Amino acid sequence: RARVARLVLSPLFQRVVIGLIVLNAVTLGLETSDTIMESWGGLLHAVDTGLLWIFTAEIALRIFAFRGRFFRDPWGIFDVLVVAISWAPATGALSVLRALRVLRVLRLISIVPSLRNVVEAMLAALPGMGSIVLLMVLIFYVFAVMSVKLFGEAMPEQFGSLGAAFFTLFQLMTLDDWANIVKPAMEAEPYALVFFLPFILIATFVVLNLFIGVIVESIQT
Amino acid sequence: RARVARLVLSPLFQRVVIGLIVLNAVTLGLETSDTIMESWGGLLHAVDTGLLWIFTAEIALRIFAFRGRFFRDPWGIFDVLVVAISWAPATGALSVLRALRVLRVLRLISIVPSLRNVVEAMLAALPGMGSIVLLMVLIFYVFAVMSVKLFGEAMPEQFGSLGAAFFTLFQLMTLDDWANIVKPAMEAEPYALVFFLPFILIATFVVLNLFIGVIVESIQT
Amino acid sequence: RARVARLVLSPLFQRVVIGLIVLNAVTLGLETSDTIMESWGGLLHAVDTGLLWIFTAEIALRIFAFRGRFFRDPWGIFDVLVVAISWAPATGALSVLRALRVLRVLRLISIVPSLRNVVEAMLAALPGMGSIVLLMVLIFYVFAVMSVKLFGEAMPEQFGSLGAAFFTLFQLMTLDDWANIVKPAMEAEPYALVFFLPFILIATFVVLNLFIGVIVESIQT
Amino acid sequence: RARVARLVLSPLFQRVVIGLIVLNAVTLGLETSDTIMESWGGLLHAVDTGLLWIFTAEIALRIFAFRGRFFRDPWGIFDVLVVAISWAPATGALSVLRALRVLRVLRLISIVPSLRNVVEAMLAALPGMGSIVLLMVLIFYVFAVMSVKLFGEAMPEQFGSLGAAFFTLFQLMTLDDWANIVKPAMEAEPYALVFFLPFILIATFVVLNLFIGVIVESIQT
Ligand code: NA
Ligand code: NA
Repeated sequence: RARVARLVLSPLFQRVVIGLIVLNAVTLGLETSDTIMESWGGLLHAVDTGLLWIFTAEIALRIFAFRGRFFRDPWGIFDVLVVAISWAPATGALSVLRALRVLRVLRLISIVPSLRNVVEAMLAALPGMGSIVLLMVLIFYVFAVMSVKLFGEAMPEQFGSLGAAFFTLFQLMTLDDWANIVKPAMEAEPYALVFFLPFILIATFVVLNLFIGVIVESIQT
Repeated sequence: RARVARLVLSPLFQRVVIGLIVLNAVTLGLETSDTIMESWGGLLHAVDTGLLWIFTAEIALRIFAFRGRFFRDPWGIFDVLVVAISWAPATGALSVLRALRVLRVLRLISIVPSLRNVVEAMLAALPGMGSIVLLMVLIFYVFAVMSVKLFGEAMPEQFGSLGAAFFTLFQLMTLDDWANIVKPAMEAEPYALVFFLPFILIATFVVLNLFIGVIVESIQT
Repeated sequence: RARVARLVLSPLFQRVVIGLIVLNAVTLGLETSDTIMESWGGLLHAVDTGLLWIFTAEIALRIFAFRGRFFRDPWGIFDVLVVAISWAPATGALSVLRALRVLRVLRLISIVPSLRNVVEAMLAALPGMGSIVLLMVLIFYVFAVMSVKLFGEAMPEQFGSLGAAFFTLFQLMTLDDWANIVKPAMEAEPYALVFFLPFILIATFVVLNLFIGVIVESIQT
Repeated sequence: RARVARLVLSPLFQRVVIGLIVLNAVTLGLETSDTIMESWGGLLHAVDTGLLWIFTAEIALRIFAFRGRFFRDPWGIFDVLVVAISWAPATGALSVLRALRVLRVLRLISIVPSLRNVVEAMLAALPGMGSIVLLMVLIFYVFAVMSVKLFGEAMPEQFGSLGAAFFTLFQLMTLDDWANIVKPAMEAEPYALVFFLPFILIATFVVLNLFIGVIVESIQT
């Protein structure tokens, strides 16, 4: 077991796995082209299946070597998940799962140290953002319910349901084409600006504070 | 009175109130769906009215327990207001008030400590922004008056009145579809770019300074 | 002379002038409405002219009191300029000058200390931005000349002349509707993306560095 | 050789070269106008050719004076490249190269110290961004492959090929008109929001971290 662990942790082994993931990324990319699939489809699928077996064997080796420790590392579970997706049956209603096979390529994050560090640093910033995200959800919910009641009849596509209202409010927050949403609303209900201007100001201000929170935390660590 | 105060401040009481607000948020959200209202409308309204009575009783208890102190706390006044809106008659011209009943859900901010802290931190940043906001209002006013005189006749929808000009200038500041506003203006009056380019540069620069002010203040505290 | 200086610097005098500027702002705003002008046009113009005389007298007093020192203060020159514009003849080709009369209201900046401080702090940040702005001008110039040669024939409205190219590149930099400019360019010349993508990345990166420069300078002072 | 070096480094020599580059920038700009080219085309081309000879001679002098050191300085290679482009034959398939002649003007960056410092500071920030840029490329690649499989048939213009998908995802990341891309995708495949919302949130969050990285590095140096 110690020998397997040493093998799995050896720089050569890691470099080979990285190379195979990059190779798999290329084949999965080539599979998106219909013209390439016509001539090389068989080969690409064969390489793809071969690589999936290799990755499965590699993870099995690591589980054998580290046992409990493997599953206590979130990246271990991440690796298992993105490889398991490729084994899931992708027929019928689950055909969407086939598109998720490329998630395998994300294993580069868990295996390349610099990528892993960057992602871990970003994830470490998330808990500190919890309260502001919760506040944002609350603001969105309250404005969404109000907007359905106020503008749902006049603009059913934008505010006809709670889901549509969430989408439209998110669009307003990103300032994408917001004037073309607020103007028709103002024509339907003259007081619309008193509703949307505060929402835009509050939502962008909360996003700004989200950004600042991440910046300040980054500077202090 | 001391007993009531202890009850109101007890963690169990707080948790029950938080649970009821979340429950109320759900019922108010379900009320936006016509299909749900057809089958469950009666029940939802009953729950809604019951919860309103409970919240009113809860606030009455807190007023009884803390008296003057309750009203010296801005969050106390906030709680009274968002509950009072739900008691206001919402018929005829005031039917808009019905949509404001969901504001009740914002009581989560005053009752959940982490949300209250985040909002208080954001509000604390506002006074420091006073001068820049005042400057922004002044810049908007001067450019709005000028734009009505310069482009009001050529582009009545965008610059026909002071209100329309404020809206259009705000849109320019957010860089939303600005080229499609400035281009027609340049066709109507060739010098338009000399008016709008400085406005866009000044307005975005002032917004940038607003952001920086908040960032610097956050870093120093 | 010392007495006049004391008068001009007295808080009461300052407050009266601020009040008159705000009053003038209101009358100039009301003048943008045709319906108000029909009934109150005469009165508004009379107030406007009266206030212009008062402001002129006030500046004359300050020049009399402070002489050379008045003109060595940039705000003094600013005050003279925005009042002088209102005295300029605004007939025929110069009718545009009439719209500039509202610039008078900007005197609030020079007379209200908090506004003056904010503007001075912003202006103080400008010299440090000199090199980056120069670099930006250089990048815009080089890309504008190239874009006229490469896309001028295919897209005359966007890249037909150096001026049009500057406008379009500025639009690309603000990310306003950029995909709808780059897509037609790619249809005309397949290599267009190799031209526009670097421009967008470079331009936004330089703007980011402009922002960071202002932030870093603000934090260090 | 030491004499040539002293000449080349003398402030007067530098100022003359700067002046000639600016002059060349002007002539290259004038060449974009068809009306100017009709009357002054011959003169402009003559000046252009003359300046190209002078710049070539200047670089030859510097190579003669500094030899190996010249080529060890990246700016030396930069100068050689932007001048060499102008000597390349620009006929037939290479006619695009003619447009690149204006790159010569970028020599202002290498010769004006303040511009060179600013650009060097910006370039110095790039290596620190390496990991995040690599992560971004990885995220884009994975989402691009998935989007071709999921939406390629329904929206061939946006997601028909890996290249189109990259373009569209970049557009989504810049929040340019994103709602008008995501809405049709949601009509084609109802689950589209579960794909695009995470992409937008992840992509903008990674860009934010890219910005913060540059800011934090700038503050610490
Ligand atoms: Na936009
Ligand atoms: Na847009």
